Amino acid sequence: MRKFNFSAGPAALPEAVLLQAQRELLDWGGRGCSVMEVSHRSPEFTEVAETAEQDLRDLLAIPQNYRVLFLHGGATAQFSAVPWNLLGGGDRVADYIRSGHWADKAIVEARRYGQVNVVASSEDRGFTYVPGPTSWRQSENAAYLHYTPNETIGGVEFDYVPAVTCPLVADMSSNILSRPVAVEKFGMIYAGAQKNIGPSGLAVAIVRDDLLDRALPGIPRSLNWKVAADAGSMDNTPPTFAWYLSALVFKWIKGQGGVEAMAEQSLRKSSLLCGFIDRSDFYSSPVERGSRSRMNVPFTLADAALDHLFLQESKAAGLLNLKGHRSVGGMRASLYNAVPVEAVEALLVFMAEFEQRYA
Amino acid sequence: MRKFNFSAGPAALPEAVLLQAQRELLDWGGRGCSVMEVSHRSPEFTEVAETAEQDLRDLLAIPQNYRVLFLHGGATAQFSAVPWNLLGGGDRVADYIRSGHWADKAIVEARRYGQVNVVASSEDRGFTYVPGPTSWRQSENAAYLHYTPNETIGGVEFDYVPAVTCPLVADMSSNILSRPVAVEKFGMIYAGAQKNIGPSGLAVAIVRDDLLDRALPGIPRSLNWKVAADAGSMDNTPPTFAWYLSALVFKWIKGQGGVEAMAEQSLRKSSLLCGFIDRSDFYSSPVERGSRSRMNVPFTLADAALDHLFLQESKAAGLLNLKGHRSVGGMRASLYNAVPVEAVEALLVFMAEFEQRYA
Repeated sequence: MRKFNFSAGPAALPEAVLLQAQRELLDWGGRGCSVMEVSHRSPEFTEVAETAEQDLRDLLAIPQNYRVLFLHGGATAQFSAVPWNLLGGGDRVADYIRSGHWADKAIVEARRYGQVNVVASSEDRGFTYVPGPTSWRQSENAAYLHYTPNETIGGVEFDYVPAVTCPLVADMSSNILSRPVAVEKFGMIYAGAQKNIGPSGLAVAIVRDDLLDRALPGIPRSLNWKVAADAGSMDNTPPTFAWYLSALVFKWIKGQGGVEAMAEQSLRKSSLLCGFIDRSDFYSSPVERGSRSRMNVPFTLADAALDHLFLQESKAAGLLNLKGHRSVGGMRASLYNAVPVEAVEALLVFMAEFEQRYA
Repeated sequence: MRKFNFSAGPAALPEAVLLQAQRELLDWGGRGCSVMEVSHRSPEFTEVAETAEQDLRDLLAIPQNYRVLFLHGGATAQFSAVPWNLLGGGDRVADYIRSGHWADKAIVEARRYGQVNVVASSEDRGFTYVPGPTSWRQSENAAYLHYTPNETIGGVEFDYVPAVTCPLVADMSSNILSRPVAVEKFGMIYAGAQKNIGPSGLAVAIVRDDLLDRALPGIPRSLNWKVAADAGSMDNTPPTFAWYLSALVFKWIKGQGGVEAMAEQSLRKSSLLCGFIDRSDFYSSPVERGSRSRMNVPFTLADAALDHLFLQESKAAGLLNLKGHRSVGGMRASLYNAVPVEAVEALLVFMAEFEQRYA
């Protein structure tokens, strides 16, 4: 029996998608083999690949002058790929916003290839808020500005797109496809698949085509966006099963009403949970109001000694993976697209009962 | 209904493995979620990861001073990773053996980071044989010697392990786990998963631990073996589903009798097919005797005008993916571990009948 799964990633997938994958796992569309067992260059898989790209283009209204790439390696490989692909065009300077754990990871890697200017940081209050745009000190000659619209661990989310003059680069791993996004404001968007797209091991990248010729010399072939773009993301064998499952997820989102419907549902789920936490004296949110993520809701108990019991009992109640990240402790409920409203309702009921028993 | 699948990769997987994956795709071991939907750091997945490593160690008798890595990106990422990880220790010189398409890919990438000395090449006869060791001109100061024990496209396979003084590096993508291998003769072994291990998007690397400190400065984090080794291949989220399926394949190979049994079966399958081809005037092998791969058997028809018909009729007969690589044409039957003897017998019967009808 399926349980409610609040994993931060690899995260819950839509049940309908898993059911389809299960049905055709040994015999895909009557072909007598699995989608995992055919060449990525076969007409059958080419159709999967092209449909996935078109559906993603439709969902995010991606303009024609952007390339959509399906890449190996998750978002972490892109922490390297971003400076390698973009720092070759002029001065080796990039602007980064420090909003938490994942922004920091991107910064550490970028510093190895150029000069990083931190234009804004929320470190002063423990990364519990989104730094407002008024305080930013942008470089005059930055090759790009990188930010993390949603911090999976901290649970903070930008509710605006930074206005910058250089190409804007965003790690949307944990909130892509959860609302409409004005792609034309970005130079490049990337996302590890394992939160709102599909299984781990795949990253999706959306790159404005004029940014494909700025790579540093010596860029490893496997990180080169131009190589991937020229080869239709098939310079080498791509992670075909992850690509296929992502294609099913894109279709599922379309069937649900697109990213507008996902946005509505995300707001409903996170408001329900955050409102409950705010009204409680037993639970509290470490994140400042106005900066809270709709995707990842960290919360703490008034008495941390109860954490273990909370996790034990919630698991027994069929509510999985509520443990906070090891670097921050407490709890975290991740409410990605595949997590239904009923899961949040069940969590809320459990939390209320738990409070009643132990407060 | 499952058909016989001769795909060169992504290739056939054992039916028993797919059946187990199918059974537990929505509810993995009664946990109420898929293996794709849990954290890679969870105790449940950690057990998968550790069991996979131990089973691979058992299967190949990997000595304790070797690290086993499960990496993103397939073998192509390792074409970059090999020079990045190994050329930092001294002179930037590496020896490579040119045995075909895949060796060439590795060479092209290595040339970008150091001096490549081609110690032997079979280009003179179109890469249809394995260059013998007597002709080699090894460098005195090579950081490593790289070779490709099995060329998937050319269908040539080394039947010996080169004796060298520098660390020996092998791209075993298409023949790993098909016979015992003396790992202690190697500095590093790597293999893309999608032929004899599991689904695409994963590579397995076996690295002698004294080779983990020779990286070039500026090596991208995602290509760094030391980073991967220190993090148990979890510096970032690994391709968990591919890792899990590989774990099932390792168990399956153990259940079949290990790599010794795979070696026996491989020889039986390839001898059956090659023997038939050699006795025929209608079919022929482009590969010289003594160099023929047990994994990939390319063959041509006496009249290439019949190629299309052959592919059409073989497909109708339930024999999938026999088309040769686009760079060489003709046919190719890949006989990896998951391809049963019955598949080869069925192919042989079809080929005999086809010859009778059209010769």
